[in-house]
Amino acid sequence: MHSCFKERFGAPPQAGLISAARGWIEFHPPYNREEAFVGLEGFSHVWVIFMFHQSQAGEVRFNVTPLYQDGAQFGLWATRTPNRTSHIGQSVVELERIEKHKGKLRLYLKGIDLIEGTPIIDIKPYLPYVDAIPDAGSGFTKQPQARLQVNFTTQAEQQLNQFENIYPELRLLIVEVLQLDPRRNHKPDRLDDNVYNLRLYDLRVVFKLVNEQNISVLEVLPCAADQIDTPDH
Amino acid sequence: MHSCFKERFGAPPQAGLISAARGWIEFHPPYNREEAFVGLEGFSHVWVIFMFHQSQAGEVRFNVTPLYQDGAQFGLWATRTPNRTSHIGQSVVELERIEKHKGKLRLYLKGIDLIEGTPIIDIKPYLPYVDAIPDAGSGFTKQPQARLQVNFTTQAEQQLNQFENIYPELRLLIVEVLQLDPRRNHKPDRLDDNVYNLRLYDLRVVFKLVNEQNISVLEVLPCAADQIDTPDH
Repeated sequence: MHSCFKERFGAPPQAGLISAARGWIEFHPPYNREEAFVGLEGFSHVWVIFMFHQSQAGEVRFNVTPLYQDGAQFGLWATRTPNRTSHIGQSVVELERIEKHKGKLRLYLKGIDLIEGTPIIDIKPYLPYVDAIPDAGSGFTKQPQARLQVNFTTQAEQQLNQFENIYPELRLLIVEVLQLDPRRNHKPDRLDDNVYNLRLYDLRVVFKLVNEQNISVLEVLPCAADQIDTPDH
Repeated sequence: MHSCFKERFGAPPQAGLISAARGWIEFHPPYNREEAFVGLEGFSHVWVIFMFHQSQAGEVRFNVTPLYQDGAQFGLWATRTPNRTSHIGQSVVELERIEKHKGKLRLYLKGIDLIEGTPIIDIKPYLPYVDAIPDAGSGFTKQPQARLQVNFTTQAEQQLNQFENIYPELRLLIVEVLQLDPRRNHKPDRLDDNVYNLRLYDLRVVFKLVNEQNISVLEVLPCAADQIDTPDH
């Protein structure tokens, strides 16, 4: 998996929450045979089955404090925490396109919650007549809501313009990530009082928490070359 | 997994197609700790992640002829065939209740497509705000439709009455299974010209294909004792 999310900070707790979150799966032999993809282009969404490769080692907890649920505890089987006995995750994501890139087949995906380097186990088509149960009872879960306003300084706007051609919907991505307030879930990279670093693609987004309702994006900068670990794109 | 389906013949190709299809998952230590189930009762549906333990051994085919799709071939990644490189399946099923039975925790499920003995890897809550995408484009797939009328002989009706107390919605289960015409997918146990055996729970359902539109259920009988391999229920 290659993802706009290079680390857990900024990645959403579920798929579909950040529409501009993009990435691709690169298929290696023997899984990249063209016959294995016939008919896939007709599906708007696919299931990605993957390993939670950054989930905590050691003993799995059977009582869990899920993200965005106000700190309440629930059972492992009632949550989607990555720290599971199976270490297996499933995400339904939008299939943007299938492309051959330097002889390798890639699935380009949107609405992802997967981070760079996630090992992929399987791909299956999303079947709405089976998988879509809009009225299902969802217990204690609250849908994570955008809670912050995100503004850009003039400097950040100018920097953004340089990168929008390279990274599609970059502005929207930054807004969608920050308005969910990712500091609630993962320890951020703190630069100064209320100033933090967010890594997206090969960029460093410097933002400031102005107050409890507002975030200001100060800068959008390329990462230092020694911080870039992404392969060709 | 304990299931009304003891073999693949009769089991549907997807979850949710046969509403009266019931079974339960029994949790063994250390997975049966009560704290692991807290909050689960609030969800109407759960994902069951499991192994396709009866999928064909040997080389996986990358071009597949899916069930109920008129014999056309598609790629492995565009289908949900059990014969996958990962051997992993995912089914969304209705959670009827959670029960303690002789000290063991059981999840009672409805709308299953899982057969007896399926190894379960994980349980996750179904989150409609993430998983339900009713308008998703479903490519070449056609939803399997009930195509046969199912009638019961007087004898079969009388036999059914004896078992309805033991097996809830047994009549509906037989109708739902047979009207999908399971002979299209798995080689049936043929007794005579157009007369077949169907195994459901510890029962043997003898049915006759009267013509291309009609099935008649001739008998509903307990399996011979040596054919019963189900544990206590």
